[in-house]
Amino acid sequence: MRIGIAGYGNLGRGVEAAVTNAQDMELVGIFTRRDPSTVKVATDAPVYAWNDMAAYADKIDVMVLCGGSATDLPAQTPELAKTFCVVDSFDTHAHIPDHFANVDAAAREAGTLGVISCGWDPGLFSLARLYASAVMPNGADYTFWGRGVSQGHSDAIRRIPGVADARQYTVPVPEALAAARSGSNPELTTRQKHTRECFVVAEPDANLAAIEEAIVTMPNYFSDYDTTVTFITQEELNAKHAGLPHGGTVIRSGRTGLNDEFGDTIEFSLNLDSNPHFTGSVLASVARAVYRMRQDGQVGARTMFDIPPAMLSPLSAEELRAHLM
Amino acid sequence: MRIGIAGYGNLGRGVEAAVTNAQDMELVGIFTRRDPSTVKVATDAPVYAWNDMAAYADKIDVMVLCGGSATDLPAQTPELAKTFCVVDSFDTHAHIPDHFANVDAAAREAGTLGVISCGWDPGLFSLARLYASAVMPNGADYTFWGRGVSQGHSDAIRRIPGVADARQYTVPVPEALAAARSGSNPELTTRQKHTRECFVVAEPDANLAAIEEAIVTMPNYFSDYDTTVTFITQEELNAKHAGLPHGGTVIRSGRTGLNDEFGDTIEFSLNLDSNPHFTGSVLASVARAVYRMRQDGQVGARTMFDIPPAMLSPLSAEELRAHLM
Repeated sequence: MRIGIAGYGNLGRGVEAAVTNAQDMELVGIFTRRDPSTVKVATDAPVYAWNDMAAYADKIDVMVLCGGSATDLPAQTPELAKTFCVVDSFDTHAHIPDHFANVDAAAREAGTLGVISCGWDPGLFSLARLYASAVMPNGADYTFWGRGVSQGHSDAIRRIPGVADARQYTVPVPEALAAARSGSNPELTTRQKHTRECFVVAEPDANLAAIEEAIVTMPNYFSDYDTTVTFITQEELNAKHAGLPHGGTVIRSGRTGLNDEFGDTIEFSLNLDSNPHFTGSVLASVARAVYRMRQDGQVGARTMFDIPPAMLSPLSAEELRAHLM
Repeated sequence: MRIGIAGYGNLGRGVEAAVTNAQDMELVGIFTRRDPSTVKVATDAPVYAWNDMAAYADKIDVMVLCGGSATDLPAQTPELAKTFCVVDSFDTHAHIPDHFANVDAAAREAGTLGVISCGWDPGLFSLARLYASAVMPNGADYTFWGRGVSQGHSDAIRRIPGVADARQYTVPVPEALAAARSGSNPELTTRQKHTRECFVVAEPDANLAAIEEAIVTMPNYFSDYDTTVTFITQEELNAKHAGLPHGGTVIRSGRTGLNDEFGDTIEFSLNLDSNPHFTGSVLASVARAVYRMRQDGQVGARTMFDIPPAMLSPLSAEELRAHLM
C-alpha cells in the first residue's frame, strides 16, 4: 500500500521510520509546508510541497497526518479527507466528537475513509479502557501517564520570561498506582495521581525565584500538582534530557459475579523510549487498516474503536489464529 | 438481546451472572444434559433439557456454549451453529484452526455467526499479543500465567492413586517477569518462566512419597517445571483453596525507530478473583457483538480478532468517543 506523510516534525519522523520498516508499505512522499529543499529527511523518501499534494491523489492510498492537535489537524484532516483516505493523531480529548463529525462529513462527501485520534492516548489506552469496561461493566478506570516528557508542559515553561529551555516530566505517584490496583476503587485527586518535575535552563541574570513561582502557580498546567523545579545548564539538559520517553498505565478495577462477590483488576501499560516513534508505529498500523477497510467499501470517519484488530496486522487471518490466538 | 446458555458448570454460572447483570440482555434459558429438575441455578432463569434446544431456535439470538474444550466444544459448537448464533471459549490453542474451520462451515451453511475461543487466553491475551505485534512488529512476546488455579493440572493430580483431592497453582517466576520487561529479549525456558505449587489431600494410608514422585515426574503437566507438593487436610483445602483465582501477564518487548534505536515495552495483565466469572463476563460481551454483527449481515466463524471493539460495549459509538477515547 502506498503511504504519504503530511507534516514532518517528530511524529512525521516516527511514521517515516515505521512505514519504511513495514514490508507491505511504500512511502510515496513526505509533504511539508516549508520549502521542500530545506527539509532533510531520515530516509531517501522524496519531499514535496504541501500545495502540490493534490497531484498525488491517485498515487497515495493513505495519507498520514502528522500535524499538531491545537491548530493543524482540526483544519487539515477534514480538508485532506476530501482527496485522500487519512489517519491522524488528534489528541484533544474534549474536542474528539466535533473533530469526528467534521472528518465524517468531508469523508462521506468525498467517498474516502478517515481514522482519527490514533496513537496511545487516545489510541491504545482508549482501547484498553473500552475492552476493560465492556468485559467488566461494574468498575472504575484509572489512567496514569509517565514517567515521561510532556511536550505541552515543556513548551509552557519555555514561554516564561527568563527561560532559555526546559523539559517537563509527568510522574505517576506510586502510592496512587498501588491504590488503583488494590481493588478499593479510591477517589484520587489530580494532585494525588501525578507529580511534575521541571528541568529549566535560565537565561543569564534571570530571576530564578520568579521563574519557579511562575511555573508552580501556572493554572491548568502546574497549580493543581506538586511540582519541583530544578535549574540546570543547557549542556546538562542536552546530555540528560534530549529524549522523548513516555508511557503510562490504564487500570480498571471492578467486580464480577451475580452479587459482585469477586474483585478483578485489568491493567495495560506502556514504557516507551521514544513517544513519537511509538505513536508513528501505531499510525502506520492504522494506515494498513484504513487501506483494507476502504477496499471493503467503507467511507466516513472512524476511530480505533471501529477497527477489527486483525486489520492492523500484516499477518493473514489464518496466521493470526494459528500463532497469536 | 435474548441469550441462551448451553452447559451449566463453573463457566455457565459465570455467564449466568454476567448476562443477568447486563441491562441489554435477557437470559432466556439454561440448557443442560442432566435432568433439568436436578439442576439448581443461581438466578430464576428457567432450565431446559439439552435435547429440547431446537424448540428455542426463534427465541434465542445468541447461544453461549459453556462446555469443555477437550470433548464438548469440538462437537457442540459446529452442531449448535446449525441452529443458533454461537459463542464459545474453546481454548486448546493448537486445535483452534481446525475448530474454526468446522464452525465456519456449519455457520455459513446455516446462515449463522459464531465467535470461537473467547475469554482471556485465548481472548483478551490474544488481543494483547495482536495489538502489540501490529504496532511494534520488531519484538518478542512473553505470556505468563498466574498466580492462579489450573483446573487441568488439579484434575491430573486427582487421577493419581491415593489422591483424594488437589489444587494446583501456576506461579510466574518474578525473575523471568523482570527479564521479559527489561528489554533484553531473553530466551526463557518453560522451567524458568513458571513454577507449580500443588496442595494435595491424600487418602488414608496412601504412600505420600509415591504420590509426590508421580506428580513431579508427570510428563507434559509437571516434569518440565520446578514443582512443590504440600500435603494438607481436606478441611484446609476447603478453607484456603476453594476459589478459582487466576490471571497473568502478556509482555511485548521490542524496538522502534528507523534503525531500531528505541526500546519499548507493552504489557497487559489480569488479576482475577474468579476465573470462570471473568471468562463468563467476556463471553457475555462477545454475545453482544455477535448479535450486532449478525444484524449487519455477517455469517460464518470469527474470533475476537475480527470484532470491532465498539461492538462489545453496551455504550453507543457517540458515548464511547466522548467518554472513553
